[in-house]
Parts: sequence; structure tokens; C-alpha cells
Amino acid sequence: RTGALPEPVFAARLRFLAEADRLKSVLRATTIFDGSRPENSAEHSWHLALFALLLAEHGTGAPDPARAARMLVLHDLVEIDAGDTPLHGGHDAAAQAAKEQAAADRIFGLLPPGEGAALRALWEEFEAAETADAVFAKAVDRVQPVLANLETGGGTWTSYKVDRDALERRVGTPVRRGAPALWAGLTPRIDDWFGPATPA
Amino acid sequence: RTGALPEPVFAARLRFLAEADRLKSVLRATTIFDGSRPENSAEHSWHLALFALLLAEHGTGAPDPARAARMLVLHDLVEIDAGDTPLHGGHDAAAQAAKEQAAADRIFGLLPPGEGAALRALWEEFEAAETADAVFAKAVDRVQPVLANLETGGGTWTSYKVDRDALERRVGTPVRRGAPALWAGLTPRIDDWFGPATPA
Ligand SMILES: [Ca+2]
Repeated sequence: RTGALPEPVFAARLRFLAEADRLKSVLRATTIFDGSRPENSAEHSWHLALFALLLAEHGTGAPDPARAARMLVLHDLVEIDAGDTPLHGGHDAAAQAAKEQAAADRIFGLLPPGEGAALRALWEEFEAAETADAVFAKAVDRVQPVLANLETGGGTWTSYKVDRDALERRVGTPVRRGAPALWAGLTPRIDDWFGPATPA
Repeated sequence: RTGALPEPVFAARLRFLAEADRLKSVLRATTIFDGSRPENSAEHSWHLALFALLLAEHGTGAPDPARAARMLVLHDLVEIDAGDTPLHGGHDAAAQAAKEQAAADRIFGLLPPGEGAALRALWEEFEAAETADAVFAKAVDRVQPVLANLETGGGTWTSYKVDRDALERRVGTPVRRGAPALWAGLTPRIDDWFGPATPA
């Protein structure tokens, strides 16, 4: 085994990796933790992989940390074409989903068929949020901006005028589903920032 | 199993993850592939994880792509304290190694002991470059800037006045060790950029 491969397969992999580089220029609504600049989706994905490796013990249904990390490395690639949709920004979910499917066709389609299909399946699994690995990965994707906002004194909660109920709905629900202990652990700090909850 | 953990363990993990965020502000000599700005070590690490997942077939000794990716997610964390040392910049290797050991003490030391030790062992394995996963991960770490330089028309080869022999020594040797087919596949493009090799 020399590891050598037919030239077109090798060239396709390099082309995909060069295209992936563009994720470093997709900017998110959230900043990095010192508040100095917007976070980009590539470094965000790196951070999430590290979260997955460290926090899997808090996940529901014994997620595989390495597999969740792999999912998170890939999960934002479609944003190269479809852009980031800020969670608290409001957007047309169906239109965004259609854009992301077209992006997945093009981007995973750069790879040799079997290989592109395997990565796309992992991305589709993440999107569907049904397996333990995906539900945990989704929770991690939601919880990282919470830490960024806490570190920066408000962040997107301030810029998008998010209230405690909206946070519970958009963030608390998926985090409690995939990693309940994470949400429980963060709740005191979140409550502290938002002030007393709206009485039911 | 609730996934809940003693408060200090949870707090330590969050503190480590918040500290890790600072890797997004460590700038490298290499630019992103459109040449518009320096690459930071966090997005670089993300890119390398993707390289590992896609190129393991070209690796020597059947490296485990997921394990190599995990190693690459962690491999630059010490730069938060020790900074990035440009490969073609020339530096005191012993002094840099000492700085990185001190950085590893502090950064992995933020975690609960067993957990910090496990991550540090993975980083030490990468640094030692003896196992198949580490040798492959090292090759990937060296080959990604080659692509960046080819995409940007020279990059650090121009800024550091690198010649073909120096490239062979600093980059070709580790890449051929960990993923010979990668170096063979890139050689025509590299030769093309540098022009005819110096006669022996
Ligand atoms: Ca590196």
C-alpha cells in the first residue's frame, strides 16, 4: 500500500479542502470571547469540536465524543454558500433549508461520490437531530454562544434584544435535550444576567 | 446517569474552554487561502482536522483519521502562551520547547487532573511524532500551508525567502514521512512555483 490514489481523486480532495477554507470568511453574529471581533464559522467549528471532546459526559444517551466532534467540524460547511443565520435574528426556515441543501449538493459534490456522500450523511444526521451524537452536537452548538455572551457581558442577547423566554425556547430547549446538566449548570449565570424570570 | 458532575469539575471544563477561545487571537505567518489576512491558529486547527478526515488514506501505517483529527484540534493550544513560531522564521528550538512545556502545564492544568493528563498525553504524542497517528498529523500540519502558499502565489515562501532546498528539508521531509503520496502529488505544483531544482 503506497497511499497513492488516482490523480482525479487526490485533486478532488484538495479542491474540497481549498474550498472549505472559505468558511474562515463567514462571520457570525457572536463575537470571540474577548468581544474584540465577530467569530468566524471555521474557528467556531474548531471550538465546538473541543467542547464535544470535553463535555460528552454531560450528554444524553452516551454520545461518542469523537463522532460528535467530527460532525461539528463539518456542520457549518454549507454556510460557505448559504451564509450564517443568526439564531436570534429571525429568518425564513424553509428558504434557508433549501439554500443549505443546494450548498450541500455543491460542496460535498466536489468530492469523489462515495466520500462526499459519507460526509453529507453525517451533516444530514446533525441536521435531523435524532441520534444521540447529533442531539448532543446540537446542544454544544447552542451552548457555546451562551458562554460567549456571558463572557462579553451580553453579546447577541443585547444586540438582538433577546428575553429570557426566547432564550429558553431557542437555546434552553435543545441544550436540555442534548445535555441537560450543561443547561442546569449554566442556569445560575444566565438567570443572573437576565434578572428574575418572567412569572408564569 | 444524569450527566451531572461535581460543580468544580464542570467549572474547570468551562474555564478551559473559555481559555481555549484565546487561540482565535494567535496569528500565524500564513494567510487564509484568499490572501486577505493572516490565519489564526484556531481556524488553522479546524482546517487540519478536516484534512486529517479526508486524507488519512494517504498516510503511512494506516493512521486513524478521527484520532489524528482529535490530536490536531488540540495541537496548537500551547500557542496561547507560547505563541506561534513560523516554520521558515528561524527560532531557538530549545527555548520554544521549554515555553511550550510551561504552557502545557498551565493550560492542560486548568482541567481536572485525569482529564488534563489525557489531553496532554495526546499533545505529547503529537510532538514526539513517533506513532502513525502523530506522524500523519505532523504531515498534515506541514502540508496545509503549502496549499495556502500555492493558492496565494507564494505566501510565506516569498516573505521568508524560502528556497526549494529549505522547503524540502523543513516540509518535504516530514510530509514524505507521514504521507508520501501527498508530497508526490504536490511536487509538480511546487516545482512549478520554484522553478527547476538546484542541481545536486
Ligand atoms: Ca501548527
